[in-house]
Amino acid sequence: MESKKPTRIESDLIGEREIPGHILYGVQTLRGIENFPISNFHLNDYPLFVNGLAMTKWAAAVANHRLGLLTDAQKDGIVAACKEILEGKHHEHFPVDMIQGGAGTTTNMNANEVICNRALQIMGYEAGEFAYLSPNDHVNCSQSTNDAYPTGIHLGLYATYQKFRPHLVDLILSLRRKSEEFAHVLKMGRTQLEDAVPMSLGQTFGGFASILNDELKNLDFAAEEFLTVNMGATAIGTGICAQPGYAEYCIEALREVTGWDIRLSEDLVGATSDTSVMVGYSSALRRICVKVNKICNDLRLLASGPRCGLHEFNLPAMQPGSSIMPGKVNPVIPEVMNQICYKVMGNDLTVTLAGDAAQMELNAMEPVMAQCCFESSDLLMNGFDTLRTLCIDGITANEDECRGYIRNSIGIVTALNPIIGYKNSTKIAKEAMETGRGVYDLVLEHDILSKEDLDTILSPENMIKPVKLDIKPRH
Amino acid sequence: MESKKPTRIESDLIGEREIPGHILYGVQTLRGIENFPISNFHLNDYPLFVNGLAMTKWAAAVANHRLGLLTDAQKDGIVAACKEILEGKHHEHFPVDMIQGGAGTTTNMNANEVICNRALQIMGYEAGEFAYLSPNDHVNCSQSTNDAYPTGIHLGLYATYQKFRPHLVDLILSLRRKSEEFAHVLKMGRTQLEDAVPMSLGQTFGGFASILNDELKNLDFAAEEFLTVNMGATAIGTGICAQPGYAEYCIEALREVTGWDIRLSEDLVGATSDTSVMVGYSSALRRICVKVNKICNDLRLLASGPRCGLHEFNLPAMQPGSSIMPGKVNPVIPEVMNQICYKVMGNDLTVTLAGDAAQMELNAMEPVMAQCCFESSDLLMNGFDTLRTLCIDGITANEDECRGYIRNSIGIVTALNPIIGYKNSTKIAKEAMETGRGVYDLVLEHDILSKEDLDTILSPENMIKPVKLDIKPRH
Amino acid sequence: MESKKPTRIESDLIGEREIPGHILYGVQTLRGIENFPISNFHLNDYPLFVNGLAMTKWAAAVANHRLGLLTDAQKDGIVAACKEILEGKHHEHFPVDMIQGGAGTTTNMNANEVICNRALQIMGYEAGEFAYLSPNDHVNCSQSTNDAYPTGIHLGLYATYQKFRPHLVDLILSLRRKSEEFAHVLKMGRTQLEDAVPMSLGQTFGGFASILNDELKNLDFAAEEFLTVNMGATAIGTGICAQPGYAEYCIEALREVTGWDIRLSEDLVGATSDTSVMVGYSSALRRICVKVNKICNDLRLLASGPRCGLHEFNLPAMQPGSSIMPGKVNPVIPEVMNQICYKVMGNDLTVTLAGDAAQMELNAMEPVMAQCCFESSDLLMNGFDTLRTLCIDGITANEDECRGYIRNSIGIVTALNPIIGYKNSTKIAKEAMETGRGVYDLVLEHDILSKEDLDTILSPENMIKPVKLDIKPRH
Amino acid sequence: MESKKPTRIESDLIGEREIPGHILYGVQTLRGIENFPISNFHLNDYPLFVNGLAMTKWAAAVANHRLGLLTDAQKDGIVAACKEILEGKHHEHFPVDMIQGGAGTTTNMNANEVICNRALQIMGYEAGEFAYLSPNDHVNCSQSTNDAYPTGIHLGLYATYQKFRPHLVDLILSLRRKSEEFAHVLKMGRTQLEDAVPMSLGQTFGGFASILNDELKNLDFAAEEFLTVNMGATAIGTGICAQPGYAEYCIEALREVTGWDIRLSEDLVGATSDTSVMVGYSSALRRICVKVNKICNDLRLLASGPRCGLHEFNLPAMQPGSSIMPGKVNPVIPEVMNQICYKVMGNDLTVTLAGDAAQMELNAMEPVMAQCCFESSDLLMNGFDTLRTLCIDGITANEDECRGYIRNSIGIVTALNPIIGYKNSTKIAKEAMETGRGVYDLVLEHDILSKEDLDTILSPENMIKPVKLDIKPRH
Repeated sequence: MESKKPTRIESDLIGEREIPGHILYGVQTLRGIENFPISNFHLNDYPLFVNGLAMTKWAAAVANHRLGLLTDAQKDGIVAACKEILEGKHHEHFPVDMIQGGAGTTTNMNANEVICNRALQIMGYEAGEFAYLSPNDHVNCSQSTNDAYPTGIHLGLYATYQKFRPHLVDLILSLRRKSEEFAHVLKMGRTQLEDAVPMSLGQTFGGFASILNDELKNLDFAAEEFLTVNMGATAIGTGICAQPGYAEYCIEALREVTGWDIRLSEDLVGATSDTSVMVGYSSALRRICVKVNKICNDLRLLASGPRCGLHEFNLPAMQPGSSIMPGKVNPVIPEVMNQICYKVMGNDLTVTLAGDAAQMELNAMEPVMAQCCFESSDLLMNGFDTLRTLCIDGITANEDECRGYIRNSIGIVTALNPIIGYKNSTKIAKEAMETGRGVYDLVLEHDILSKEDLDTILSPENMIKPVKLDIKPRH
Repeated sequence: MESKKPTRIESDLIGEREIPGHILYGVQTLRGIENFPISNFHLNDYPLFVNGLAMTKWAAAVANHRLGLLTDAQKDGIVAACKEILEGKHHEHFPVDMIQGGAGTTTNMNANEVICNRALQIMGYEAGEFAYLSPNDHVNCSQSTNDAYPTGIHLGLYATYQKFRPHLVDLILSLRRKSEEFAHVLKMGRTQLEDAVPMSLGQTFGGFASILNDELKNLDFAAEEFLTVNMGATAIGTGICAQPGYAEYCIEALREVTGWDIRLSEDLVGATSDTSVMVGYSSALRRICVKVNKICNDLRLLASGPRCGLHEFNLPAMQPGSSIMPGKVNPVIPEVMNQICYKVMGNDLTVTLAGDAAQMELNAMEPVMAQCCFESSDLLMNGFDTLRTLCIDGITANEDECRGYIRNSIGIVTALNPIIGYKNSTKIAKEAMETGRGVYDLVLEHDILSKEDLDTILSPENMIKPVKLDIKPRH
Repeated sequence: MESKKPTRIESDLIGEREIPGHILYGVQTLRGIENFPISNFHLNDYPLFVNGLAMTKWAAAVANHRLGLLTDAQKDGIVAACKEILEGKHHEHFPVDMIQGGAGTTTNMNANEVICNRALQIMGYEAGEFAYLSPNDHVNCSQSTNDAYPTGIHLGLYATYQKFRPHLVDLILSLRRKSEEFAHVLKMGRTQLEDAVPMSLGQTFGGFASILNDELKNLDFAAEEFLTVNMGATAIGTGICAQPGYAEYCIEALREVTGWDIRLSEDLVGATSDTSVMVGYSSALRRICVKVNKICNDLRLLASGPRCGLHEFNLPAMQPGSSIMPGKVNPVIPEVMNQICYKVMGNDLTVTLAGDAAQMELNAMEPVMAQCCFESSDLLMNGFDTLRTLCIDGITANEDECRGYIRNSIGIVTALNPIIGYKNSTKIAKEAMETGRGVYDLVLEHDILSKEDLDTILSPENMIKPVKLDIKPRH
Repeated sequence: MESKKPTRIESDLIGEREIPGHILYGVQTLRGIENFPISNFHLNDYPLFVNGLAMTKWAAAVANHRLGLLTDAQKDGIVAACKEILEGKHHEHFPVDMIQGGAGTTTNMNANEVICNRALQIMGYEAGEFAYLSPNDHVNCSQSTNDAYPTGIHLGLYATYQKFRPHLVDLILSLRRKSEEFAHVLKMGRTQLEDAVPMSLGQTFGGFASILNDELKNLDFAAEEFLTVNMGATAIGTGICAQPGYAEYCIEALREVTGWDIRLSEDLVGATSDTSVMVGYSSALRRICVKVNKICNDLRLLASGPRCGLHEFNLPAMQPGSSIMPGKVNPVIPEVMNQICYKVMGNDLTVTLAGDAAQMELNAMEPVMAQCCFESSDLLMNGFDTLRTLCIDGITANEDECRGYIRNSIGIVTALNPIIGYKNSTKIAKEAMETGRGVYDLVLEHDILSKEDLDTILSPENMIKPVKLDIKPRH
């Protein structure tokens, strides 16, 4: 794979540049590196994105070959180079900043150049011998950045979604296991932070699992849109430089290469300036965050204490909680998960702002949108695993404290409503509040119900699900 | 309907209050009015929300009656009162601020009180004679604010969505008509604001229509979630105070009352604190805004001028554009639409922030979420109609200026790529740029193609769609 | 003030329109009403904004008169009309939607027309007799919408700020009073929701007061920028149509009319497209919201219970808290305040998005920015008063429960750090945690400190402020 | 500096762990590394933050020594270690993720451990010999994470601000130079994208410079707040474990160490849970972005073309603009700057959301706020330099095209207003619009002004600033 010459000269519209012989990228990638020294995020931080670009180029080569625009050797060279990239090779030659001007031209050219040079080597030539295979005329044949780049993003993000989903599912399953483990632990529910009525701790965790599970449908729906791509649009959606049939061949090849149900955009002009699939995906991540935030907030609140908080259960102690307060243990894992969610919600605003900046036939702000979608996905995967393994899985219930809350509460008076009516229940509640006494005693004292009936109504099993009790008040 | 007494006394946990005789609401609504003097938005600004509450109470009454918890007379009274509300009556008795504390208790009690008092009148009693029908024990029977309120919101927002959708469809159709009208007008496309390649003005408007049309699927998906409701959850999702079967009866009744495919939430505990359906709907509106913003920005940009801008078409002149610059006409309608979109995107942040604030068994911040969803829907409907009737429908093309751009452009050199290659095309482009001359002349001068072949390649029809031309360069 | 004719005819660039004789506005306002049927917010919902427009027109008239561009009669007529508006008259003639296209031209013309017609009446003519005084040539003399409108907004928002500030100060004072009232109530502090170390409830409320008090400086700084205006910029900042000296005369007159320290923008071209003063003011409101949210969240959390929460103090009961749970009282006032904050934070995003949309010599999206700034100010004023009078002022402490938390806590071990070191304190804490026993007993049992020394260290007074204790461990 | 032993054992509340001998951090940092495998951002990506921590620990050591709590040797060891860190040494021992749970405890302990171990080495001991100097009892003496961590952040961000400001100033100066260079280039101004009135291109760039220059005041005001710190607050602001006088000594030492005007928070309880200084700083960055976005949007719009856009000036060609359109050059540098702004605005939302999450005596979400503030500052510095050197500095004007716009425009009719009135000017404008003819010819044809007078009025010098012309219309 080593070049015989230490450097080669490449040129573009702007002029000539020297490229080290062992480097697979070319002059345009070099300019991109110099023009965009911006962020901590580079193409090869996101291997699934690099793969997405390779899959795109592979499919285009197949379609172009079918139309007679590439020779067998050229097509085979390109395909072989793409396969190597998909095996994880050559990613170090994708060093460009994820945040770049030019609507992704640098990224597209980075892919064209690396694939071209590697294909040349495979074909038995030297990198840079573009007479045999050219980055623009052959690897980029029938394409523009404006179709190849968003297609590469779509494929990269779809693969990321496929990787992401099981991490979320694992978190849901972990919550479900806790739901079963805590099914017998009775506790008080709270609305608006005020004592409400009894429930089981299992129902709490079941609720967590359930609201996250509902998100799968929404996430799937959003991700599914990545499978619609605009190959064949070329520069602005009109398909200039592409032959009739190319778009369809390309989609066919993409379906083969990816194994996914890829579709062509219905209107290529509209699709080429439109980045709303990323807006939609980012919204789906944001919505997951809204729920994960709620779960983490509840975990922190319900585990608060140990003696001056709710303390219904214990989170595993991961590290000393304080540099000054001895013995303190803090909910550090839910806290870091909350922060991830805030970061993802900020990224979502970035995606929306950038998505809002489309102008005429293109949206030049696409690169930062992709950066945010990839970053957010990674952050959440890291967070979900951390939350599951270092927190949820190790939660233990404080059963006595949970039960104690019910015994002591006024809220159980609610269970009397169907028998004695809201107004009468309110009177009992008010007296309990003012005297500090228990609902149970007051009901008996006022001779409203027999002890037996009262015990039936207030049995925890009867308070945590709908029941039909054939009980009448004494008067 | 007039009461015989000028006032009546009502009481609650806090104490007694005097209510004017002609007023259908009661003591709890009165407290809500006094406690929440907050915003410009009141329940009766959103009649479809008031209707949603009435449909909820109607269905609950049917279910309770079926379980033997309401007499025939009570059920008939409630249903009759609800029907009157659905006919648009009594809405003036829903004066509470949309933004309220208490997680909607005031709104739910407002509905309970008005329906109860009106039902009492229909039943032949006076408002306030709660011995015969009580707001809490009968109208609210087997319910809590925590199921009835979000159900009312869901129904109200689903009805709003049904009203909203045709306004969006009309806008799309208007854009489609323009797409057909301008199918023959050729112009230059632009990417990154720089001259790109030719297209038709019809393709521009077709793209607008197409990207909005894609949103219908997303909007429908988001709105469909409103049909899942948590009736039977009562206070916290455990169904306390409700009998087995109630939830199912209630859903059945709701399906009948609404004619919609209403479903019960799978996990009532999870569902009761979860407001993410509104987050999802708001995201769908936000995504529409991202596209409408793009369209309005393009309309303003492409119509800019008349002599120092792009001026590809004319927006109808709606009003003098300046208090100082005579004859100036501004794109006031797209401008107001942009502002609506910014407002809706702000509301979306509010919805997300409030959605993020759920704690344990409830989200107390639901009222502002509903307010924003209703406000945003109204703003967009007003905007769509304004944009369609006062702007899109009246657009006229400046065909000569559009064609002039193509004649003059360098971008048409792109069409030569497949024949002479990217590097050669770049040389022509560079020379055109530096000399100020035309691509056409330069190609002939360099004897790259015959005049006939060049004319074929550069014929506009061949540049705005994929073509296969069997042309070879001269050398 | 009644016109003799039932209607009059007015015309503009677009054509003629009939205006009812009793109406002070004219044809351009009429077009604005018809073009912008958008929102719930109209100019006369914000009387301070209407006043700001009147002050602007008054000052411009004085400056134009001084330059000989208006006759005495014309100037006197305009000034008299403006004075009437500042007295609250004629506001009903400002019916235009706050959210409008045209960058405020409609609003500026609304002011020009009403002031012109009213001045004509004062001068003894009929509304519409523009030969004697014209909306454009005289009331708008030397002005454009592009300087008069933002100046009117700045003046209106500065007046709104002046009204707003005391509401915030009152809230701070209310919190301060509670801080003093609760100075003696000892309780546990909590970090990351976990038990930390003792403090007084007075310190809690003092902290609330203090963080809000810090915001006054920031708010004042942001609002002070409203005093910089761009009068004299006319259309784009170059001052076309204005005479040399006009801008300075105008500022002089504005200082007189308002009594405020008005200044001219240093660069009128830059200033005319720049709306960042509103972005800054909105940021200041948002930052206040971040703190008010924190305070309301703490109020709700610390008052939670009564029996299954922290219950350190009681919020006044404002209304029954539940339609199903008898006796429940909820923190409805902090809840509504939270929601206001979310709404203001959403409006802040709208302001930022619209502020981001400036193009070349103007920002056409200014109207929605103004709408949001006025709406947010009103919402917060309503919220602050509600929060103060219906909640903070009536809070009562549960002293026994507060003290009980300290007695029971492990966190007091922190006070031993300086004497026995962090590692030893950690051992005690760990043992307390594992055995459920108290720190006090364990320290004595292990003979680490004498009872007397331990009592000194753990006396609450010594734990809620820095102390120097000359105590050594026993070994 | 090499340890004699290959590993050492350290222990904490959770248990024992083995640490490689050459590593300066200890067991708690190790746990932090394992607990938080979250993001691409680590402490040592932000050397100014690491320095801020070192300055904090240095000052605390001086104050503790003064109070007799540290020996001379201990103080000297700590100070020497801190000095080395400030010289850029040992930063590789700060590997913890910036986004972490625990409210910064891991970061604070990372600093305590590294400084302690390095000080031990300097004192002649081995890392880990905590009997001579302990991370908690000595380096962290009189401190908590809750004061040391935010103080370190404040110092780190203030230093970052000091580094950031000159990059912004350089950008402003670059714009100012262009303003002077283009002072003589006349062009049309545009409002609402429609032709307005003449101005100079120098005024355009002067406006850019001016609006950014206005931000310096706002930025300075926001950054100045970083100088207020809460040292002495310890755990929750009450100063537990700290002696009277410590806070003041600490501030004194900080002023010495930093050379900055450091101040103590007025209310330490309020200050300790409050992170709004970061919210304020982030808002200041966001506001800069609003303006930088506007400038970049204008650069892209005014340079658009070359033949189908405004093309008033040329941006330097940095790279080929398209993989398909030969010769295309795109505004890649403003585009990447726009994207940076969107990213910073997203980070600002994250900061606000996390700032909103303070609870009781602390805000556990501080780490992500710091991460965002540091990241945004870096992104903007990179962007400003890129924008200045690769774009602004190389802009060249297309003088002929600029002047051509004026010649051709209708907007110059505005200059006639003061002489012939708005209604008459409107008639001329309308005729020009309808006939396609020029304003100049029409005015002469209608014999409204003499040629000489018209030439005076329409001389460009008279149209780009306020003038007094003593000209009357002919009739």
